[in-house]
Amino acid sequence: MPNPNALLTSFKETSHQISGHGRRRVQILKEALADTEEMTDADYYGQGVIIEEFQNKIAEYLGKESAVFFPSGTMAQQIALRIWCDQQHLPKVAYHPLCHLEIHEEGGLRHLHHIEPILLGAPDRLIDLADVVNLPESVAVLLLELPQREIGGQLPPFETLQDIAHVCRERGIVLHLDGARLFEVLPYYQKTAAEVSALFDSVYVSFYKGIGGIAGAILAGPKPFTDQAKIWKRRHGGDLISLYPYILAADYFFHRRVNNMARYYAQAQELAARFNRLQGVWTMPLVPVSNMFHVYVDLPKEQVEAILEQLHRATAIGLTGVLREHGTHSCSFEVSVGDQLGMIPELSLRDLFDQFNTLLLDAVRTKESVD
Amino acid sequence: MPNPNALLTSFKETSHQISGHGRRRVQILKEALADTEEMTDADYYGQGVIIEEFQNKIAEYLGKESAVFFPSGTMAQQIALRIWCDQQHLPKVAYHPLCHLEIHEEGGLRHLHHIEPILLGAPDRLIDLADVVNLPESVAVLLLELPQREIGGQLPPFETLQDIAHVCRERGIVLHLDGARLFEVLPYYQKTAAEVSALFDSVYVSFYKGIGGIAGAILAGPKPFTDQAKIWKRRHGGDLISLYPYILAADYFFHRRVNNMARYYAQAQELAARFNRLQGVWTMPLVPVSNMFHVYVDLPKEQVEAILEQLHRATAIGLTGVLREHGTHSCSFEVSVGDQLGMIPELSLRDLFDQFNTLLLDAVRTKESVD
Repeated sequence: MPNPNALLTSFKETSHQISGHGRRRVQILKEALADTEEMTDADYYGQGVIIEEFQNKIAEYLGKESAVFFPSGTMAQQIALRIWCDQQHLPKVAYHPLCHLEIHEEGGLRHLHHIEPILLGAPDRLIDLADVVNLPESVAVLLLELPQREIGGQLPPFETLQDIAHVCRERGIVLHLDGARLFEVLPYYQKTAAEVSALFDSVYVSFYKGIGGIAGAILAGPKPFTDQAKIWKRRHGGDLISLYPYILAADYFFHRRVNNMARYYAQAQELAARFNRLQGVWTMPLVPVSNMFHVYVDLPKEQVEAILEQLHRATAIGLTGVLREHGTHSCSFEVSVGDQLGMIPELSLRDLFDQFNTLLLDAVRTKESVD
Repeated sequence: MPNPNALLTSFKETSHQISGHGRRRVQILKEALADTEEMTDADYYGQGVIIEEFQNKIAEYLGKESAVFFPSGTMAQQIALRIWCDQQHLPKVAYHPLCHLEIHEEGGLRHLHHIEPILLGAPDRLIDLADVVNLPESVAVLLLELPQREIGGQLPPFETLQDIAHVCRERGIVLHLDGARLFEVLPYYQKTAAEVSALFDSVYVSFYKGIGGIAGAILAGPKPFTDQAKIWKRRHGGDLISLYPYILAADYFFHRRVNNMARYYAQAQELAARFNRLQGVWTMPLVPVSNMFHVYVDLPKEQVEAILEQLHRATAIGLTGVLREHGTHSCSFEVSVGDQLGMIPELSLRDLFDQFNTLLLDAVRTKESVD
């Protein structure tokens, strides 16, 4: 019987990974703290230099009046939607069917805020202008996620965003940005964070994805909005006596990585091309528009698990620890390029893909001979 | 015009304080991390050695089947009450009028969980057995806070707790312990944490009060209860990708301080006696039952602020940075004894109280001559 965790185990034993900035270990925090003066005062229930300076810095970066640091994006976004819904006296929001709030938060938006989501568009594609124009009923807020993570990190053209923002403004619909990976899409749009954020009434960004911090998020918007967000943060249990471990790490890695996004993006395009040259493998999107994409393999999950395990052992390069099944004949995994990919020598990478190709051809041949 | 922050400023400039373990500074985290192996893996959405071992350790310490680490007590307790109310199909809880949920959480329990609180007893005294026996209507849960912080940290006799627990069990009322300062009351009760917790269906404890960590809480109870608590933690936005900065600090300071509570308690009693010997000053409770008490001064707030500022400058020993006003002729502040008090030499302490006494006598004399 195959061990269900064998793939994850083999992945964890690799020395480098094609995704991310390296394993999430305590050294990340130690590194982030190394330059901080020991005598620096902790933040205290949302006040103090550490939290206020970081909030101001990110507000300015996003071109928003004000910003609040949150322990999680889940909390930040539910609160954003709640404030806008209360203001509009309409507990309804529209978002993509695979929105984080819909599939990863145990229905918090319904259970805590009694807000009804309208699933806009279709799970396998982006929300487009027609979806917004043809909204079946009134909503207080439209949430757009850039890039749309669950479909491989796809993006609409910037003009579509502008058109959607225009329709929303005309109809009095608040537009909120799920910018969990906003930093990562700026090179594709060739826009500043402020230029993208200007289309939205409120913006959430995350500090542990492309930035590689430990946890934490910023919610930004007009001052009356962030003032309310602070009250809701207290209600949610997110107004911790001190959040500085996350803030100091977010700040440290923001400065270190926010300007690396163009490199990660270019590397993701090259890496996706390597996957697309393999037999029965393709990426979504075919040409990435950020540091991320999904890799689809036209073989049963168990078979791909065995192949990846073999690759992990042979090359010490990790591709993924977990596969998502699509029917019985296909599976996929996510790639998000960070610092790690650049640390793998070109020859090792070439060797990895050569071996991957051979194993895939063997698998297809076996399959054909069985058929 | 007096500077409203002058007291706080003078307090922050003192070299020692009669309360706490020292200023909340980044060095606390650095110290807690110093012994942690850099290669230790981060916890990951509630899983991993760091979080699971700590949860198991505290569950065992509290004599409960299972435990969940939360970023805050606010979140932990709202969730505890929600789970029990849902289970009883009754969105009503009873707690003290000065319960943390009532006065420090911006009404989160109502706004997020639509739970109605029944304020039991009176603001200036503990909930007693008669209050519970005469509960005016059915409630799903009774929350007891040990010690009752807002009235100086008072405690009922252990027999009263047993009687209340008995009544609750008979009537099918769930009993929840707000044990924000549970460690601190064990020396008075001469009981283990498990012996106290055994009277309660669920227990919350905090790691940044007597323990002196950075933030974070544990919620403990039966396994089905904590399983649900994990789902609600996700809904609240508290299931962070990593909570290890708080867990490592909680663990480090738990081991370092959990056995100091008897010392803090004895020191609090001595310190309260010093205050009670001053003219127009008394403590609540008169004889502390934990490391904490409130100090009342029979003079207007502005006058006491001036006296304390003068004391801070003269002695470099901090008493408080903030005063609470009671009418126009009296004010109070909180004392929670930690490591700091023991670092102040007896002679300095004696000098502090001598000077305090002189200033108070001057103030009373001035007041009498004005009258």
